[in-house]
Amino acid sequence: MTTAKLLLHCPDRPGILAEVTDFITVNKGNIIYLDQYVDHVENIFFMRIEWELKEFLVPREKIEDYFRTLYAQKYAMDFRLYFSDVKPRMALFVSKMSHCLFDILARYTAGEWNVEIPLIISNHPDLEQVARRFDIPFHCFPINKENKAEQERAELELLAQNKVSFIVLARYMQVISDQMIQVYPNKIINIHHSFLPAFVGAKPYHAAFERGVKIIGATSHYVTTDLDAGPIIEQDVVRISHKDSVEDLVNKGKDLEKIVLSRAVQKHIDRKVLAYKNKTVIFN
Amino acid sequence: MTTAKLLLHCPDRPGILAEVTDFITVNKGNIIYLDQYVDHVENIFFMRIEWELKEFLVPREKIEDYFRTLYAQKYAMDFRLYFSDVKPRMALFVSKMSHCLFDILARYTAGEWNVEIPLIISNHPDLEQVARRFDIPFHCFPINKENKAEQERAELELLAQNKVSFIVLARYMQVISDQMIQVYPNKIINIHHSFLPAFVGAKPYHAAFERGVKIIGATSHYVTTDLDAGPIIEQDVVRISHKDSVEDLVNKGKDLEKIVLSRAVQKHIDRKVLAYKNKTVIFN
Amino acid sequence: MTTAKLLLHCPDRPGILAEVTDFITVNKGNIIYLDQYVDHVENIFFMRIEWELKEFLVPREKIEDYFRTLYAQKYAMDFRLYFSDVKPRMALFVSKMSHCLFDILARYTAGEWNVEIPLIISNHPDLEQVARRFDIPFHCFPINKENKAEQERAELELLAQNKVSFIVLARYMQVISDQMIQVYPNKIINIHHSFLPAFVGAKPYHAAFERGVKIIGATSHYVTTDLDAGPIIEQDVVRISHKDSVEDLVNKGKDLEKIVLSRAVQKHIDRKVLAYKNKTVIFN
Amino acid sequence: MTTAKLLLHCPDRPGILAEVTDFITVNKGNIIYLDQYVDHVENIFFMRIEWELKEFLVPREKIEDYFRTLYAQKYAMDFRLYFSDVKPRMALFVSKMSHCLFDILARYTAGEWNVEIPLIISNHPDLEQVARRFDIPFHCFPINKENKAEQERAELELLAQNKVSFIVLARYMQVISDQMIQVYPNKIINIHHSFLPAFVGAKPYHAAFERGVKIIGATSHYVTTDLDAGPIIEQDVVRISHKDSVEDLVNKGKDLEKIVLSRAVQKHIDRKVLAYKNKTVIFN
Repeated sequence: MTTAKLLLHCPDRPGILAEVTDFITVNKGNIIYLDQYVDHVENIFFMRIEWELKEFLVPREKIEDYFRTLYAQKYAMDFRLYFSDVKPRMALFVSKMSHCLFDILARYTAGEWNVEIPLIISNHPDLEQVARRFDIPFHCFPINKENKAEQERAELELLAQNKVSFIVLARYMQVISDQMIQVYPNKIINIHHSFLPAFVGAKPYHAAFERGVKIIGATSHYVTTDLDAGPIIEQDVVRISHKDSVEDLVNKGKDLEKIVLSRAVQKHIDRKVLAYKNKTVIFN
Repeated sequence: MTTAKLLLHCPDRPGILAEVTDFITVNKGNIIYLDQYVDHVENIFFMRIEWELKEFLVPREKIEDYFRTLYAQKYAMDFRLYFSDVKPRMALFVSKMSHCLFDILARYTAGEWNVEIPLIISNHPDLEQVARRFDIPFHCFPINKENKAEQERAELELLAQNKVSFIVLARYMQVISDQMIQVYPNKIINIHHSFLPAFVGAKPYHAAFERGVKIIGATSHYVTTDLDAGPIIEQDVVRISHKDSVEDLVNKGKDLEKIVLSRAVQKHIDRKVLAYKNKTVIFN
Repeated sequence: MTTAKLLLHCPDRPGILAEVTDFITVNKGNIIYLDQYVDHVENIFFMRIEWELKEFLVPREKIEDYFRTLYAQKYAMDFRLYFSDVKPRMALFVSKMSHCLFDILARYTAGEWNVEIPLIISNHPDLEQVARRFDIPFHCFPINKENKAEQERAELELLAQNKVSFIVLARYMQVISDQMIQVYPNKIINIHHSFLPAFVGAKPYHAAFERGVKIIGATSHYVTTDLDAGPIIEQDVVRISHKDSVEDLVNKGKDLEKIVLSRAVQKHIDRKVLAYKNKTVIFN
Repeated sequence: MTTAKLLLHCPDRPGILAEVTDFITVNKGNIIYLDQYVDHVENIFFMRIEWELKEFLVPREKIEDYFRTLYAQKYAMDFRLYFSDVKPRMALFVSKMSHCLFDILARYTAGEWNVEIPLIISNHPDLEQVARRFDIPFHCFPINKENKAEQERAELELLAQNKVSFIVLARYMQVISDQMIQVYPNKIINIHHSFLPAFVGAKPYHAAFERGVKIIGATSHYVTTDLDAGPIIEQDVVRISHKDSVEDLVNKGKDLEKIVLSRAVQKHIDRKVLAYKNKTVIFN
C-alpha cells in the first residue's frame, strides 16, 4: 500500500486544516494519518498528513505541482512531499566506537527500517571490519587540520555519486564544517553523549563525573553551524550513582547513545520530524 | 476566553474530519486544539476539538442540538460537548491513608485544577481532620457487609444533592458496588497500587515483594464492574531493589500513587480522556 | 529500637572496614546496616554503619569520644554520629509557590518523616494561610537589596532560637548569602527547577522551552556559595514534547520538583547523604 | 590486575562480615569491592567481596579449601569463588528474531564483556547467516514434540563438549525442559517480553494491547521449572499510547528486550547476581 506523506508549516490562519484535508478527501485519497499542531508563540501551523495513493485522482507526479499552485502559494506554506515506496539513502559516518554502528546495521539487516545504506565513511580505518561483516562499502578519509576542507569535498562528491539524502554521525569524532552542513541542512543527524544543553563539547562523561550528577543522558539532534546547538530530535537518560566511575558512565552511556540515535533516525526515515528554527516538531 | 470542547467517536468513514472542522471554521469558531485518531482494528474514528466561542455564530445553547442533527446522526457518532467555564464537580472517597488526599487538596487549594470539590466521603473517621484543614465537608459512612447497599444509597443521594459529576477514589479501601458504578459509568477514577494487570486485588506490594520484581508501579483507571480491570488512564513505575522491604515499597509507592492519580484526574478534568470499550484514548 | 548511625570518610587504607565493624561487634552492637564505598580517584574511603544500641557495651554518651580516640585519629577520619531517637529540626523557607510546601507538610502531618518542623520562614506573606492550616509558626522577612544582610541576621537568630539543624528551600526565590551558608554548611537543601548543570540561574523553564529540549528535570542540592553548583543529592526528569508551552513545563515541573525535593530531604533526615567536596555519596 | 570474587550467603549472625574481611586483610589481600545485605525477613546474610590476588598470601588454588574449612562450615555458608581471569563460557540459544543476538554479538565483538561465546544453538536455520557474520559456530536442532527430549540431550552433550558455563536464551521460542534446567540451575538467562508477572506466557504484546496498558516492559530472569516465574534479574519499561498498534509494541519492545537482556547478562558475567529462592540479590 503506497502512501503519500505531506509535511508542511505556514503562518496560522483559519481554514488551512479543513482545506488540505478536503483536497485529499475530495480526490478520493484515504487519509490514514493526520497530526497537526499550532505554535501559538510563533503563530505557525504545522501539519503532517498521510494518505493512500491507490484511488487518489491526482496523478502521483502531479501532486506536488497541484498542491503548490492551489494551497502553498495561498498560505505561504513550506512543504515537503514524500512517497512511502521511495527509500531515503543514508550515509553513516563513524570513527572508532562501534556500538551505534552495530545497532544501526543490525536494524538495517533485519529489515526494520525503510532505508538504503549505500556507504560508510570514516576518518579512521578501525571499523572497516564491521562494515565488511555487513557487506557495506567502507571509505576512509583521514582528516587533519591541513586536509579537512579537501577531504570533505571528496566526501561530498562521493555522497552525491551515491545519491545520499541524509547523513548519520554514529559517534563520528570530527566537527562537520559549514560547507557540508549547507549541502545537507537539517539532514545530518548527530548523537551527542550528554543531556544537552548540559556538557556541550568534548568529554561530556568526564564533565558529568566531575559535576556529580545523578542522571546522565544522550541527545540526538540535527547538525547546524552552531556546535551541539541544532534542533533536538530525541533525548533519553539513565540513572547513575556516586559508585560509577567515568568508565562506568561511558559504558552505561553507550546503550543510551545507540537507542537515542536509532530512535531519531527512525523518526527521520518515517518523515515524522519537522525542524523549524532551532526546534523540532515530532509527529507521532 | 471561553471554549467549547467536543469529544466524539464513530465508525471511521472518509470526510468526517473535514466536515467537522469545516462546521466550526465556517461558523467563525477559532480552532485552538485538534487531535484525532483512527483505531484501525476496530475501525473507529476518535476526535477531540476545541474552539473559542467568542465569535462563534451558533449560540452556545444550540451547539449540541445542531451538531447532533447535522453530523452525529449521519455518522452514528457518540459525542460529548463541554464548555470551559463549567467546572466539573468532584467527590473524593477516602479511607485511612492521606497521601493522595493531601496531594489533590493541595492542587485544589493552589488553583491548579478547573474543578469544584463539594465533599469528601469516607468509610472511616480518620481523615476528617485533613478535610477540616482544607474546609471541605466530610461525611463518614462506615461500611460493613450488612449495611453496604444501604450506605451506598445514602452516598448516592448525597452525591446527587451536591451535583457531583465524577468520583475519585483516593485510596478508598472498599469495592464499589454495581449500583454506584452504573450511576457513574466511566466517571469513577481509582488508583490501584500496582502496575496492572500485575498484582490485581489486595496487598499488591506484598505480592510484588514476594515475586521479587525490580520495578513497581501504580495504575489509575475507570472503575467498572470487573475488579481492577477498567480502562487504564495512566500508569507509572519506580525502580526498587532487593534491599527494599515491603514497608519501603509502600513508601516508594505512595509517591507514585499520588502522582499517577493526580495526572489521571487532571486529564479527566481537562476532558482529554475518551473511554471506549476497555481502553482509553488520551488526547494530548 | 534505638540505633546509632555513623558516617565517616578518610584516606583509604587496608583494614578500616574490618576494624570499625569489629569495634561494634566486639562490643555487642548488632549491625543492621552497612554500606561502604571507595573513591579510587581521590583514594577516599566512605562508610555508613548503623547498629542497635540496646546491648551495646559502650555507653551512648561516650561512643563519640571512644570512636574519636580509637579510630578517627589513627585514620584521619571525618565522622558524624547520630542517634535514631534524636529528631533533626528543619526550617522551611518559602516564597509564593505552594506545591513543595504542601508536599512536605503532608508528609510531616502523616508522620512519614522522623523530623520536627518548628517554623516556616518566607520573604512574602502569601503562604501564611498554608502554614496556618498545618499549625506551624510562620515568619515573614521581606527582603530587598538594602535590608538583606540585616534580615538574614534576624533569620539566623530565629533559627538558632529554634535549634534548627537544617534548612529546606522549598522554592524560596532568594539567593542565600554566604553568611548563612557558612552557619549551615551542607545543611541547606535547595530544589532547582532544571536538570543541572543545564539551565543554571533564573527562568530555567523558559530556557528549556527556547532550547527545545525533549526532557525537563529538577535537581536537589546542598547550597554552596557557588550558585546552583553545590553537591547534587537527587535528580529526576519527565518527558515533554513540542506541544508543551512554557506554562505546561511549569506545571509538569511542579510534580518533579516536589518529589525530587522530598526524596532529597528524606535521605538527609535518614542520614544517608555524605557530601564530599562537590559531590555526594548516597548510601542506600 | 587479577582479582578473586567471593559471593556467599548464610544464616545471619553477628561477626561474619568482620571475620571475612579480616581473613582477606590479614592475608594482605587488597579489598576493592564489598557489598553486603541482610534479608531481615528470612534472616539471611548475603555478601560479595572482591580483592586483588597480587600480594595475597593464600595461594590461589587453595583459597576455596581454606575458606570452606575456616568459615563456610562454621557459618553454614553457601559460597562461590571466581577469578577475574577465568572467562565464563556462554551459549546463545536463538530462534528467528535477531535483535537480541545482534546486540550481544556486537558487545562481544567490541570486547565489552569478559566472556567467551563458543557456539550458537537454534531450533530454526534463519539466523545462521548472522552467526556467520560474526564467525561463531551455529548448530541447528529443529524441535518438535516427538524429538524434544532427544534433541535436548544432543544439545546438552554439545554444551558439555564446549565447556559451557551458562546459557542465554536470546528470544529462543521453546520451553526449556526440566532435564536441561537441572544441569544449569540459575545458569539459564531468559528474556520475557513483558513486565512480569503481567502477561505470562505466549503473545504478551497482544495481551498488553488488548488490556490497554500505558507502559510495556521486558523482564530478564533465570529459568526455573516454573514457566516465567524464575528469579528476576532485570526489568525495564517504555511508555506507549493508544496510538500504538500491536506491531508498534513489538518494535518498541525489541529495544527494551535487548537492553534488559544485555544488562542481565553483564551482571551475570560480572558475578554480581546471587539467586536465592525465587529472588535475586543484585550487588552493585
